[in-house]
Amino acid sequence: MSKFWSPIVSRLKPYVPGEQPSMANLVKLNTNESPYGPSEKALEAIRAAASDDMRLYPDPVALGLRQAIGERCGVSADEVFVGNGSDEVLAHAFAALLKHDQPLLYPDISYSFYPTYAGLFGIHAVEVPLNDAFRIDIADYRRPAGAIILPNPNAPTGIGMPLAEIERLVAEHPDQPVVIDEAYIDFGGESAVALVPKYENLLVVQTFSKSRALAGLRVGFAIGQRPLIEALERVKDSFNSYPLGRAAQAGAIAAIRDTDWFEEARGKIIATRAELIRELEMRGFEVLPSQANFVFARHPDHAGQTLAAKLRERAVIVRHFAKPRIEDFLRITIGTDAECARLITALDEIV
Amino acid sequence: MSKFWSPIVSRLKPYVPGEQPSMANLVKLNTNESPYGPSEKALEAIRAAASDDMRLYPDPVALGLRQAIGERCGVSADEVFVGNGSDEVLAHAFAALLKHDQPLLYPDISYSFYPTYAGLFGIHAVEVPLNDAFRIDIADYRRPAGAIILPNPNAPTGIGMPLAEIERLVAEHPDQPVVIDEAYIDFGGESAVALVPKYENLLVVQTFSKSRALAGLRVGFAIGQRPLIEALERVKDSFNSYPLGRAAQAGAIAAIRDTDWFEEARGKIIATRAELIRELEMRGFEVLPSQANFVFARHPDHAGQTLAAKLRERAVIVRHFAKPRIEDFLRITIGTDAECARLITALDEIV
Repeated sequence: MSKFWSPIVSRLKPYVPGEQPSMANLVKLNTNESPYGPSEKALEAIRAAASDDMRLYPDPVALGLRQAIGERCGVSADEVFVGNGSDEVLAHAFAALLKHDQPLLYPDISYSFYPTYAGLFGIHAVEVPLNDAFRIDIADYRRPAGAIILPNPNAPTGIGMPLAEIERLVAEHPDQPVVIDEAYIDFGGESAVALVPKYENLLVVQTFSKSRALAGLRVGFAIGQRPLIEALERVKDSFNSYPLGRAAQAGAIAAIRDTDWFEEARGKIIATRAELIRELEMRGFEVLPSQANFVFARHPDHAGQTLAAKLRERAVIVRHFAKPRIEDFLRITIGTDAECARLITALDEIV
Repeated sequence: MSKFWSPIVSRLKPYVPGEQPSMANLVKLNTNESPYGPSEKALEAIRAAASDDMRLYPDPVALGLRQAIGERCGVSADEVFVGNGSDEVLAHAFAALLKHDQPLLYPDISYSFYPTYAGLFGIHAVEVPLNDAFRIDIADYRRPAGAIILPNPNAPTGIGMPLAEIERLVAEHPDQPVVIDEAYIDFGGESAVALVPKYENLLVVQTFSKSRALAGLRVGFAIGQRPLIEALERVKDSFNSYPLGRAAQAGAIAAIRDTDWFEEARGKIIATRAELIRELEMRGFEVLPSQANFVFARHPDHAGQTLAAKLRERAVIVRHFAKPRIEDFLRITIGTDAECARLITALDEIV
């Protein structure tokens, strides 16, 4: 606390990202990164961007990237908004679309950045509890709402909702913006992007950090009809004209066009996930049904915090949330087969 | 306007950046970019960052970069904050430090993003007129203030203030944060970074976009004592954990260490500026004394807008602001000697 701070600063509850430790021989399964390096075409494009042109500002509207995303997603470039990771896109969405007289609704167990954004922008938010199976029940959202945001698949549970459920939610709230945060959609879920032409209140957010293996590049995007996209543009242009540098734009364009790399990488992750779930269940873990590049699992005889600490002693880092209802779960990123084998070996020493 | 917008959105007045046209044989003197490509060491570091590690999140606190900047500026890494261009750093500074009961003060003729930030964050701001010589007079800031921000050198005038004047301003407002925006400091000004150990209310903001020729990379930074830096960190960690990707951090570290490149490039720009001013004055232009990598000039017989349009017809793009007091000025970035010669040739056809 300092007399120089704007009053908001002391009230903030900053988000704490998963740590990025630098240990030798680490099995890092804590931040849902891809275990596979990104498309070589993306890396080549980044290298090519490292030219004398780096002296020039990037395209502030990132037209080429928005066109490439639009082609991939079956929408026009005007229906695409891009930002510095989906975190920045979400931040702008909170500011631009989710602050209304009625409360913003989101699940009580969900992406833990949502309450932080709500605090930053002074948004009155109500957390809607997941049901006893840790699922989102859209019936629970039939209540006064100014807007809704939820991840599909949800994090950290990994549980996805069928597209028909998402459509029902969007249709039931025609006067409210509904943001579907699809950071993990490419690992088995059904994207709501297909619903965008039909629903003016729907905004879908995706990222290059997970299924494109470009967490280090910082690119995310949103898809929606023009009025929603225009709101994001207006806030972005009041905050930072050029959030995406030349390397980020070039790399992301090449990445989204490399469908061969994409299909192979996500196929491998989905196959490893099935195997990891089988191994965990064999050892007594309860594993929630995952459509993401991570699993959320608990053991009936071992506290989550203890398990996470003992794994860490064995240089295996997973994510643990000290939060009611989920304090006994571990969120485990799907690594390579070898990394998952090392996790299982470590668990066999512990449980 | 849409029913889905948060109320703030329709009230925003987004900043309009200088255009990034793609014309053949263009002389682009409108956005104060460096005419010289960046340090080859910076480009090599960006290329090296394009590896499989791009699948991993970058260091959220950018420790290596903050250390490199700290070494260069004579402060500790804890006294350095980094962001996605100095625009993002400024945005966070407005939110974190410049919103108080008393008004924020800044010059009436200054970086035109300031009123936009004030609008975004709901900050009551008062514009303090430059004096008749287009200079900032610190006596005009002796009035009730919650905070102060001003560029040194100022933009778009290019006029710098002596460090003693800056110190007087900072010392006269011990209870108010004073932000000195030094985007153009390396072209002849005296940085206020040297005052940081002495004044707890001083925050200095700089950028890699101008004197480091890395506008395309998006890196800016702020230097101040811990309480001010902590305020920026708290807002940043409530907005976007990872604003700087791996390429940006690596490139910026290499750039700030390449002092040979830096001294040579700024030396050339300063020399070209002197020559351009001479040529403009020979043609009847009034040129404000510039310590920046641009000049601000007007001709007694030609309207600014007309001059800018006629230069554009000749593929020379400069910046014109349709704003009272300065509507007859052109802001002309210092290009290479050849680019400045093309500007002069074009002007000889016009005036």
